[in-house]
Amino acid sequence: MKVMVLGYDGYIGFPLTQHLLKRGHEVFGVDNGSRRQRVKDLESNSLTPIADFYLRKSRLASNKNWLGATSVNIGIANPVYLKHILQKIKPDAIVHLAEQPSAPWSMKSPFNASITQQENVLGTLHLLWAMKDECPEAHLVKLGTMGEYGTPECDIPEGIVPEKCLAGIDYKLSNTQSGTEEVKCPLSGLLFPRSPGSFYHLSKVHDTHNIHFACNNWGLRSTDIMQGVVFGLNECKNELDLTRFDYDECFGTAINRFCAQALADIPLTVYGSGNQTRGFLPLKDSIQCLTIALEKPPELGEYRTLNQFESIYSINDLADMVAKSCELTVSIQHLDNPRKEAEKHYYNPDHDKLFKMGYKPTTDIEGEIIKLLCALRPYKDLIKKHVIMPRINWR
Amino acid sequence: MKVMVLGYDGYIGFPLTQHLLKRGHEVFGVDNGSRRQRVKDLESNSLTPIADFYLRKSRLASNKNWLGATSVNIGIANPVYLKHILQKIKPDAIVHLAEQPSAPWSMKSPFNASITQQENVLGTLHLLWAMKDECPEAHLVKLGTMGEYGTPECDIPEGIVPEKCLAGIDYKLSNTQSGTEEVKCPLSGLLFPRSPGSFYHLSKVHDTHNIHFACNNWGLRSTDIMQGVVFGLNECKNELDLTRFDYDECFGTAINRFCAQALADIPLTVYGSGNQTRGFLPLKDSIQCLTIALEKPPELGEYRTLNQFESIYSINDLADMVAKSCELTVSIQHLDNPRKEAEKHYYNPDHDKLFKMGYKPTTDIEGEIIKLLCALRPYKDLIKKHVIMPRINWR
Repeated sequence: MKVMVLGYDGYIGFPLTQHLLKRGHEVFGVDNGSRRQRVKDLESNSLTPIADFYLRKSRLASNKNWLGATSVNIGIANPVYLKHILQKIKPDAIVHLAEQPSAPWSMKSPFNASITQQENVLGTLHLLWAMKDECPEAHLVKLGTMGEYGTPECDIPEGIVPEKCLAGIDYKLSNTQSGTEEVKCPLSGLLFPRSPGSFYHLSKVHDTHNIHFACNNWGLRSTDIMQGVVFGLNECKNELDLTRFDYDECFGTAINRFCAQALADIPLTVYGSGNQTRGFLPLKDSIQCLTIALEKPPELGEYRTLNQFESIYSINDLADMVAKSCELTVSIQHLDNPRKEAEKHYYNPDHDKLFKMGYKPTTDIEGEIIKLLCALRPYKDLIKKHVIMPRINWR
Repeated sequence: MKVMVLGYDGYIGFPLTQHLLKRGHEVFGVDNGSRRQRVKDLESNSLTPIADFYLRKSRLASNKNWLGATSVNIGIANPVYLKHILQKIKPDAIVHLAEQPSAPWSMKSPFNASITQQENVLGTLHLLWAMKDECPEAHLVKLGTMGEYGTPECDIPEGIVPEKCLAGIDYKLSNTQSGTEEVKCPLSGLLFPRSPGSFYHLSKVHDTHNIHFACNNWGLRSTDIMQGVVFGLNECKNELDLTRFDYDECFGTAINRFCAQALADIPLTVYGSGNQTRGFLPLKDSIQCLTIALEKPPELGEYRTLNQFESIYSINDLADMVAKSCELTVSIQHLDNPRKEAEKHYYNPDHDKLFKMGYKPTTDIEGEIIKLLCALRPYKDLIKKHVIMPRINWR
């Protein structure tokens, strides 16, 4: 299969690209290097010593299935640029990971919010138009987030309101006029209402609506991935094939940040009570799931949502697991929550579809955390402690 | 009250500004004249001979309550520009009508789609940030559209999923475990799922999500107006005080286009079967409703949705009314629908709130159509017939 990976230089994009090449797919990459620059702007670094942008590209080029790469910010560039690329490559599938991925970064200033929504929403919009014009049968695998749903007081389905009740209880609709009974939810078939919690999460919700429309209106096909929080590293023999590892307040996600804190021998910082519950998955499971979605495309015209995570955990559970996995004694410190979010809430999102499609979690989460701590230990003296504490407040 | 009107030079903005000044409110205007330019780009014109942009501004300046105006495209400008304006004016309320308002225009090309979402979504986003920083207690009255909801197979509430069932039938939730009964919808309190039908409509849905978040997260207050299709003219003694009247395929809405066709003695063009049903209201009712919303603001932190229309009509009903109201004999022609939309559908949107707040429809719709045809007759020889037929296809 000929696959275009937007964001091939990123945390998920790079190991996904390697994995797809290994599986015999041809890959063309798009990346403008903005993640590297933005982490540098925060005075942070990737804890893993990743290869320089050009060195990495030349290493990929040693694989015969690598079709080359281009550097463009698709949300800011003229839409025609992307159209020309698709015209040339004619991909069978496009994996779109090239979005600004940080909620705190998007809440830092009006500029950051504006750039986030411009890059993400217009980027996907430009991609949809270019696909319609140049490869209307290609499959768009688009990275969204479980954070689109927020934490409503009912079960969360995979994307669309189902026919069955969402409150986790049986119910009947009784039509008193005709005496007949229905069990269909009146909203079934509509997009499940989203309750995102930052301008980043909002940008993903806007994408969802634009993609859903493009599938219904133009007959494009897409898998919209509502992904949980990813953590961990890829496995490789050569250090140059390691993916980046961010642990700063913006681009470092919970488990990754906790591991960096544990290795730097500073307290693990939990925001608020720590009862916030989210879906998590190791990086290699994310790669596995994205590959499954790619290799089992939906029908033409179909808009398919997959909730992609291994299991749900509370932040406190994760901090405890990291603390226990350490040889050192680390403490856990609760900070005032810089985010506005429910700290105790119902959370029961469905995630059956990927399991039914063949997703097999490769290991238990505690085992993954131990492996991650081991893999990072050689770099622990490089950790910049001052970039971890939250300074962006979005209340 | 000190009101900032964004889009004060537009179809609704200009008569609203005049009305607010007459009611003793102070008004500061923002407009970059893009509507005038875009209608000109289509080789069309406002059928009413509106005053030049600067002449109109100087006429407004003769009112002691006019605080002046500035020209800026808020979605494209540096967000700081808007912050500086709000810092200077410190408005009590902001009416935001400064968005690209045409669905067909947004579907013309990737550029048009991109400009629409950039101007609309980022414009509102910049405004929200500037309000948070400079006037967090001001009331944002934001123009959305009934088209955000699409045509779902259930009743449409005003913005939020209500506790009661939406299928128009009574229902019970029976918890079989505890034996208790509930009548609350499991999704109640969440944003009612939107099903917009163009990149323009999508931009309004994106706005809705961004505003909803800003109210919940920052405690801003907003009235989000889901407006039906507006038609007609304002009443005034001096021709220079008339608002613009567009009848082209992009900026001319159904009734206005039909009236122009009737006066030009060409067939009224109905898209598809004509059974599409929408909410409509005359321009003066729109002014009345916006004024009611402004003068009865919601509480701080409240996100309030008002469905703003007088009544629902099918396109066939309206074509028939226009045809009957004419002294001439006009025919009705059904065209292949250039839009992808349900042509026969359930449609029962709630619109009680504005009526409860005091909205009194000023006349019947047939009377309004007759008045409109009379008001336009002096200009009928100026109609450019070739701009009316739809050329933009979004299937």
